[in-house]
Amino acid sequence: MNEKRHAFVISDRTGLTAEAMAHSLLSQFPKVDFQTRLVPFIDSLDKAKELVREIDVVAGETGMKPLVFVTLVDDAIRMIINQSESVVFDLFDTFIGPMERELGLESSHSVGKSHGVSDNKAYTSRIAAVHFAMQTDDGLETDHYNLSDLIVIGVSRCGKTPTSLYLSLHYGLFVSNYPLTENELLSKRLPEVLVQQREKVFGLTIDPQRLLQIRQERYKGDSYSSVQTCQQEVAQAENIFRTARIPYLNTTRMSVEEIGATIIHKAGLRRRIVV
Amino acid sequence: MNEKRHAFVISDRTGLTAEAMAHSLLSQFPKVDFQTRLVPFIDSLDKAKELVREIDVVAGETGMKPLVFVTLVDDAIRMIINQSESVVFDLFDTFIGPMERELGLESSHSVGKSHGVSDNKAYTSRIAAVHFAMQTDDGLETDHYNLSDLIVIGVSRCGKTPTSLYLSLHYGLFVSNYPLTENELLSKRLPEVLVQQREKVFGLTIDPQRLLQIRQERYKGDSYSSVQTCQQEVAQAENIFRTARIPYLNTTRMSVEEIGATIIHKAGLRRRIVV
Repeated sequence: MNEKRHAFVISDRTGLTAEAMAHSLLSQFPKVDFQTRLVPFIDSLDKAKELVREIDVVAGETGMKPLVFVTLVDDAIRMIINQSESVVFDLFDTFIGPMERELGLESSHSVGKSHGVSDNKAYTSRIAAVHFAMQTDDGLETDHYNLSDLIVIGVSRCGKTPTSLYLSLHYGLFVSNYPLTENELLSKRLPEVLVQQREKVFGLTIDPQRLLQIRQERYKGDSYSSVQTCQQEVAQAENIFRTARIPYLNTTRMSVEEIGATIIHKAGLRRRIVV
Repeated sequence: MNEKRHAFVISDRTGLTAEAMAHSLLSQFPKVDFQTRLVPFIDSLDKAKELVREIDVVAGETGMKPLVFVTLVDDAIRMIINQSESVVFDLFDTFIGPMERELGLESSHSVGKSHGVSDNKAYTSRIAAVHFAMQTDDGLETDHYNLSDLIVIGVSRCGKTPTSLYLSLHYGLFVSNYPLTENELLSKRLPEVLVQQREKVFGLTIDPQRLLQIRQERYKGDSYSSVQTCQQEVAQAENIFRTARIPYLNTTRMSVEEIGATIIHKAGLRRRIVV
């Protein structure tokens, strides 16, 4: 049996950064069955005191101190949390002191810079990027490709749409995606509409076995989701990528975050926004 | 003049967590003009050594040690980076030791659990969520609302689409969005198609002045983007939210992350996936 342990992730804002850090740290202890609770928006002394009571109840009931991961800018709130019956890992304050000494400056102690709307222009261009990705999803409105930063291509259900939306949301890039259809795969050439945009094109591929699984979730029984079709389409697509010298990536064991970060890295693209 | 300083964010995987942490820490020093470089996928000793040379070049040219933020699981790679002419902030290792002592366990030292595809099922449901959000974007296919976890409503351009896509990508939730049109706003009632789904509905609102800005970016001159229309539509929408007792949120000064996290928090929803 795995050991159970309670964990709290506490933030004065959304807690997204804290959650990602905590998740990454906790995953290093696979033998422990963590019961993790995210508690965002702890931005007042009263909320902090109430939370301390809840932490102490958990500590009392389980007889074990919960692990508490915090990103809190306000010293007074942090001090209250520190009084709880818990082991606090302060993701923020641990580094601010050393950074202040190194930079010879005091930190601003201001809350919520990380995910705030730093300027309206960035927000607007982010929304514009998301709308562009939707507008040019799945081969729609290819006449807008002159505005694209990137055109993701591949066979149906290899992950083009989530990748495009992710990159538009998180990097503010104008990302289109284009499905390689049966006739285009048979032609063995890069589709005509992409030739002029060659340098923006990035291919996605996937193991045929995994593609089969994904397609069968929704279209069981179609020839579309047969072993042969999946094998053939993937081979044909990779063949086009190689012949046309299109950079490409096998997404089989990757999350959308990893696919996105890898494409940015390999294609030498830069963020248009910082989120 | 602001002080310039170089910073590196180094990870053995995508670096997304490290980037978020570093961004949040660096933003506490607004007087410094940081030149930040993200270096993901440092997963071999050779890559680490090459990177150390680059860091040392920057240190030599600027006469100042770059700030280096790392999330590296492999001790050998970390030790190489530590030899560079830099100030290293180890976001991961700083906490792993104390956690090991508290838990009485050794950490697994395994790379890339945080953003990996932990299981295929989670990946598939995430893709399904994204496709559902697109399928039911902007009032499309309302007959699928029985499958929705959440239906975001509001006037045109208040942020419904980015919010829906964000929540589908990051929480794996089935999120639809529905625009309140002119006639529906005039009717002063929750649209008929939403009445049965009342408990899933969440409203977005926005300051009329900000809405005007956003609409004018694309539709300057239309009555759609006039001061009067924006003021009127926002007032009518908020009136419907209050009358129908729909929870709602003013998104004016919020990023998509904040809007998403706030809705999850207020609507009492839970993640379907951990990313």
